[in-house]
Amino acid sequence: MTPIVTLTTDFGNADGYVGQMKGVLLSLCPDLRIVDLSHDVPAQGVQAGAFLLETASAAFPPGTIHVAVVDPGVGTARRRLVVRTERHSFVLPDNGLVSRVLDREPAHAAWALDAAHYRRDTVSATFEGRDVFAPAAAWLARGVSPERFGPEVRDPVRLPPSPPPSPGENAVPVVWVDRFGNVVLDVARIALPEGAAPRVRAAQRTVDRIARTYGDSAPGEPVLLFGSSGYLEIAVREGRADHALGLSVGDRVTLLL
Amino acid sequence: MTPIVTLTTDFGNADGYVGQMKGVLLSLCPDLRIVDLSHDVPAQGVQAGAFLLETASAAFPPGTIHVAVVDPGVGTARRRLVVRTERHSFVLPDNGLVSRVLDREPAHAAWALDAAHYRRDTVSATFEGRDVFAPAAAWLARGVSPERFGPEVRDPVRLPPSPPPSPGENAVPVVWVDRFGNVVLDVARIALPEGAAPRVRAAQRTVDRIARTYGDSAPGEPVLLFGSSGYLEIAVREGRADHALGLSVGDRVTLLL
Amino acid sequence: MTPIVTLTTDFGNADGYVGQMKGVLLSLCPDLRIVDLSHDVPAQGVQAGAFLLETASAAFPPGTIHVAVVDPGVGTARRRLVVRTERHSFVLPDNGLVSRVLDREPAHAAWALDAAHYRRDTVSATFEGRDVFAPAAAWLARGVSPERFGPEVRDPVRLPPSPPPSPGENAVPVVWVDRFGNVVLDVARIALPEGAAPRVRAAQRTVDRIARTYGDSAPGEPVLLFGSSGYLEIAVREGRADHALGLSVGDRVTLLL
Repeated sequence: MTPIVTLTTDFGNADGYVGQMKGVLLSLCPDLRIVDLSHDVPAQGVQAGAFLLETASAAFPPGTIHVAVVDPGVGTARRRLVVRTERHSFVLPDNGLVSRVLDREPAHAAWALDAAHYRRDTVSATFEGRDVFAPAAAWLARGVSPERFGPEVRDPVRLPPSPPPSPGENAVPVVWVDRFGNVVLDVARIALPEGAAPRVRAAQRTVDRIARTYGDSAPGEPVLLFGSSGYLEIAVREGRADHALGLSVGDRVTLLL
Repeated sequence: MTPIVTLTTDFGNADGYVGQMKGVLLSLCPDLRIVDLSHDVPAQGVQAGAFLLETASAAFPPGTIHVAVVDPGVGTARRRLVVRTERHSFVLPDNGLVSRVLDREPAHAAWALDAAHYRRDTVSATFEGRDVFAPAAAWLARGVSPERFGPEVRDPVRLPPSPPPSPGENAVPVVWVDRFGNVVLDVARIALPEGAAPRVRAAQRTVDRIARTYGDSAPGEPVLLFGSSGYLEIAVREGRADHALGLSVGDRVTLLL
Repeated sequence: MTPIVTLTTDFGNADGYVGQMKGVLLSLCPDLRIVDLSHDVPAQGVQAGAFLLETASAAFPPGTIHVAVVDPGVGTARRRLVVRTERHSFVLPDNGLVSRVLDREPAHAAWALDAAHYRRDTVSATFEGRDVFAPAAAWLARGVSPERFGPEVRDPVRLPPSPPPSPGENAVPVVWVDRFGNVVLDVARIALPEGAAPRVRAAQRTVDRIARTYGDSAPGEPVLLFGSSGYLEIAVREGRADHALGLSVGDRVTLLL
């Protein structure tokens, strides 16, 4: 069966850019199943895009091809990549977007997307999502092997991962704020010691109650919980933790262990 | 042919939550056709979600499976249901979301979604949309019969329907405000007496002109019309009725008959 | 293979209107591939919708059917059309929405969408997208020939195109502002003389630097570039040109040649 292609971008859904990518994909591979992961990654937010791609791609079956375009360097000399892990393929600019996927699935190989043959005839300097990345994904889906695109790349750009938390104070970044105002921290449950009781200090407040679900707390009270992707979150029932604590993506809070 | 699965949630489209549900659906049932009804139900707005589900699901062919997740009680002891009406199946938390569908299509049966076998291996306390409801829908689509999920449920939670309007004054709630600012009232055309001339009082104004289309009125003038789903709406041509009258979902206006 | 149907509307994605159209499409033609181009055309913005449709439809394969509904006159006597160009079909109200497509692909034929047989049984006065346009597209996809819908139309409504720019000053409209704040002008690269060095005056500023990509400029500096659809844009790196220059769709700027 034809693979699934997912799309993650900072293009929004209003401007028809995503539709153009789908037109290219379906022109080359008519029976593709295309799934949007998000087109609302903060504009040019490579860190946030890397988080979205890591968490949203995990639920897809083996063989899925993920196209991700958050690309402040579009049209410049930065490389473009096809990355293959044990389960999935990724088609994206070489700017660190794939970092968190590779932190989770270290076994991988990568190739440069160089071959003009697998691009559209004319490549816009501002829309490689349509002209380079979408066609590459469609050709991959049709079975072209990734080494046909260009030479192997042994050093894809990696964003430095947050260090594993240690006893005492740790400065940890906010990696995502979701629609409900839940503030996701770059603290994976599996990186904490067994039985740890994490506390978080932010905006002169210390949040130390750990809840299992959003309903487990008093309305208005900030609580900690491990969200559905295994990361520590600050949540406020019937409220927004981001507003309550004045936090947004990229801010740092203090994790106390 | 494989059934259609539709999705209605309050998850928004930015966070990848919906994409994760689709990944699970396609992992279990690769040839599914998935259609988004809305992911912008007001956060935890069960009443509004019930309205959206009633009106947007009606246009789908027999056999469609509708998954709806607006679920303030996620992870708590509330039941999860598969509900079957004459035409469609519904997979959702037992919190009243299916109420308005059942007001319209009373003949139905319901089962609890209990069997661990039809869930993901690990169920997150905060994301049953991905871990319980999406897999159940995929198994239904593959032909699993609903009694396999759990015991029959004879008393699904129902939201009290608005009483049928009677001569004189009736307090009726706003059930939806759409993108254009049209204010949809919980007054079905078929619940009004033949030839009735409804008037609506809101914010010290009485709206009594009934238009057939949005173009049928003077710019700026609030009018009443029966919208495309058969409910009474207040609309303002080249304007927003919600702003003009200060109304939002859950507010009550006075219907005069 | 069944054709692709794309959808372009000003309905937004929150209200389930688009989902209803998809329900109708799939009821009549279950194996359709449906692609959203945009549902965020500015409300009742026929000019902007015509631009979106022109630019976003171009990437689709021959045989694609594009449904577009931006329709201030819904329910009134304006005609509805099926338009066939060399490559694509368009199903839309006869209000100029198809204008820019026809400026680009002049060879076409058009028919009125009159036959009740190809509509839903009951046609809402406010939602012809669901009741007239979606069913017509599904029947087209099933192979019904367009003359079955109604008589040929030789004079579809056309919006006056911007005149080709000439040496000196030209008043040109803003046709789109995208998610990044890039301001797209109605100036096609191919309408400019070979080697022209366009400058743009807006808000007492003259923008004369031409960049190849967004990264090609200093942060905060407005530059001109030819965007991915071949139109002249004003962009600000790490900023928003629309805010910097106070421009929105429909405004006019001065192009100096």
